[in-house]
Amino acid sequence: MITFFRAAALSVLALVTLTGAGQNSRPDESKKPLVLSSQGSFFVGGETKTTNTQATAPGGPAQNDVTVNQMYVQYQSPLTGSQHVPVVMVHGCCLSSKTWETTPDGRMGWNEYFVRRNRSVYLADQVARARSGFDASVINAVKAGQAPPSQLPNVLVAGHQAAWSSFRFGPTYNTPFPDGQFPVQAVDELYKQMIPDLNSTLPMPNPTWKNMAALAVQLHGAVLMGHSESGFFPEEAALIDASGVRGIISIEMACTTTMTPQQLAAMAKIPILIMFGDHLGDVQGRFGSVWPENFATCQKFVQQVNSAGGDAQMMDLPKLGIKGNSHMLMQDKNNLQLADLILEWIDQHVEAKKSARRH
Amino acid sequence: MITFFRAAALSVLALVTLTGAGQNSRPDESKKPLVLSSQGSFFVGGETKTTNTQATAPGGPAQNDVTVNQMYVQYQSPLTGSQHVPVVMVHGCCLSSKTWETTPDGRMGWNEYFVRRNRSVYLADQVARARSGFDASVINAVKAGQAPPSQLPNVLVAGHQAAWSSFRFGPTYNTPFPDGQFPVQAVDELYKQMIPDLNSTLPMPNPTWKNMAALAVQLHGAVLMGHSESGFFPEEAALIDASGVRGIISIEMACTTTMTPQQLAAMAKIPILIMFGDHLGDVQGRFGSVWPENFATCQKFVQQVNSAGGDAQMMDLPKLGIKGNSHMLMQDKNNLQLADLILEWIDQHVEAKKSARRH
Repeated sequence: MITFFRAAALSVLALVTLTGAGQNSRPDESKKPLVLSSQGSFFVGGETKTTNTQATAPGGPAQNDVTVNQMYVQYQSPLTGSQHVPVVMVHGCCLSSKTWETTPDGRMGWNEYFVRRNRSVYLADQVARARSGFDASVINAVKAGQAPPSQLPNVLVAGHQAAWSSFRFGPTYNTPFPDGQFPVQAVDELYKQMIPDLNSTLPMPNPTWKNMAALAVQLHGAVLMGHSESGFFPEEAALIDASGVRGIISIEMACTTTMTPQQLAAMAKIPILIMFGDHLGDVQGRFGSVWPENFATCQKFVQQVNSAGGDAQMMDLPKLGIKGNSHMLMQDKNNLQLADLILEWIDQHVEAKKSARRH
Repeated sequence: MITFFRAAALSVLALVTLTGAGQNSRPDESKKPLVLSSQGSFFVGGETKTTNTQATAPGGPAQNDVTVNQMYVQYQSPLTGSQHVPVVMVHGCCLSSKTWETTPDGRMGWNEYFVRRNRSVYLADQVARARSGFDASVINAVKAGQAPPSQLPNVLVAGHQAAWSSFRFGPTYNTPFPDGQFPVQAVDELYKQMIPDLNSTLPMPNPTWKNMAALAVQLHGAVLMGHSESGFFPEEAALIDASGVRGIISIEMACTTTMTPQQLAAMAKIPILIMFGDHLGDVQGRFGSVWPENFATCQKFVQQVNSAGGDAQMMDLPKLGIKGNSHMLMQDKNNLQLADLILEWIDQHVEAKKSARRH
C-alpha cells in the first residue's frame, strides 16, 4: 500500500512540475477528432406507481400509472474502453450531468476527457432531476385540494449569491479569490446549469444509491464518482450492493463517521479517493465553517476505513501544491490536471490491483 | 417546385422498395466507430430573476438571483459536418431530448444517425424541462403561504394509459396495432422517458421559441425540427426571427391556420416538411378524433403556405406505403427509414436551393 501512495505522490509532483500548478498548459485536445466505439442512453431502475393525482394529461383517464425513481444514464465508450474500468459520474445539488460536460468558459469537461483517456464514461442524472424526471404527485394533489400546501416539497434552488459562497468562488459575492481557479468571467453560464432540486420528494434510501449500485453490476464493475450532494452516494451505493463497485471517488462533501464495523469492513474492500479543493475556510458567512467541517468528517472517515484495513486516500489539493480550486473543481481552469490525478489513482489503486489479483 | 415534389416522391418509392416498407433491413451501423470533430453542451437564452421565494438553499441569503428561461443544448459534429446545414431537434410534451437518442428497444436514435449522415446535430431540452431547469418560485411561494394553492402550476404528466392512447400504440391500452411500428415489447422504457412537463410555468411567448430562433442564428443557419408539443415551435421561432431558419420539420401536431398574410409570407420563404404517421383515427377515446383534427389543420396550413408561394410539404406516411407508424415515429422500428426521408428532403428542399442560389 505504501508504495502505491508514494508512487502517486511522486507522480503528482511530477505532473505539477510539468504542467505548472494551477494551469493547463497542454494543447487543446478537444480539437482532435473523437472516436467512439459506441454511445447511447438508457435508464436504470424505476417503479410503476398508480395514482389519480399524478397524470393530468388532457383526455387521459382519471387514474393512470406513472414510472418514478428511474435514473437516466448517457454513455460514451472509446475504441479501447474495454481495457479500463468504466467510470460513472453523478452530479451534485441543484445541478445535472451538465456538471461534467463543456465548462462554463467552453473548455473540455471531464466526460470527454476521460473518454479521450480510453475510459467508458456514464453520466447519470440523479433520480428526481433533469432527464430522470420526478414524482409530481404531491404538487398536483395540493393543487387539487387533496393535500395541504405544507406537504409541498422543499424545492431547493441555489441562487447566484448562495452558489458563489457555497462553491467558494471568493470571500464575498462577486469578489473572486486572487488565485481562484474557477473561470469567474463565465459564472453566468454556471448559473444556467443550476436547476431546481426535488430530492426532498424521494423515499429513503435514495433510489439513486440503489440505481448506482445496479448500474455498476450491469457494467460488470465500475468506478463510481460523486460530487457534493452526491459525493457520498458511491459509498451509500456500495453499502446496498458492493459487488459491482470497483472503486469510489468522492469529491467535496460531508462523510459519514458513524459506520458500523461491518459497514467499515465493506468499505475497506473498495479503493476510495476523496478530493477537496482550496479555500475551505475562506468564504464569509455560514459556508466558511461548513467546508472545514466537511473536510474533518472525511479525514476521520479515511482513518476509519484505513484502520479497518482499507485503501482510502484524502487528496487535499493545496497540500499537493495545487492552489485555488473551487467546489466546482471539474470546471476549474486546471480541471484536466485534476482529472489526470484521478485517472492515475484509478490506474494504481483500482486497475493495478485487478492485475495483481490475476497473478 | 413540382419537380422537387416529384423527385422526392419517386425517391421515397425507391427507398420503400429497397428497404421493405416498415422494416430496417440495413446492417447495424451503430456497431461501426463514430468519429466526431467536436461535441459539447451549452445554454441559449436565460434571464436573471430576483426573488425571495425561489432560493431555499440552506445557509444562503433570504433574497437571491436565479437564472430562468435558459435552454440546454447538447451537440455533436461529424468530420464533414460543415458541408451540411445543422439540425436542431426539440422533443415534445412530458419528454426530454432522450426522445431522439437510443430507442426504447436499444436501437440507434435519430441523433446519432443524423451525425452518421454527416450532419451536426443539436438536441435542446425545452425551457422548463430536464437539464434546462424550471422556475420553481410559485411552488415555493405556495409552500411558504405567500400564494394560494390554486396558483400552483398544472404539472402535466402523461401516464402509461394516456401515452398508449395518445401515442397511438394500439386501439386500447396494452393492445397493439397488428402492423404497429412502435417496439411495444419495450414500452416500459418509453414510460421511463416521460417526465413532468412544467410548460404551464412559462411566460408567453414561450422562451423556447426565442431560444430556438437565437440558436439558428448562432449556428449561421439551421434546420429546426419539432415534435408533438414542440411540432410547431420551428414555425413559432421563425415568426420571431427567421434569419437563421433554413428549413422546418414539424412532426405530428396541430398547425396554426390563422396566420396573417404577412406571417404566411414569412413562412413561404422557408422550406417546410410536415410528417404524420399511421392510424390517426384508429384509437378509442378522445385521441381517436384529436389526430385526424390535427392532420386537417396541417393540411390547411400547407395549402396556405403554398398559396403564398411557399414550399410546404405534407408527408403522409401511409400514402407513401409506409404503414403502422406511431406518434413516436423517431423510435419506431422503421425510424432510420423515416430519417432517410427527412435527410433527402433536407438535401433537396434546403440544400439544393442553397446551391441553386449560388448560381
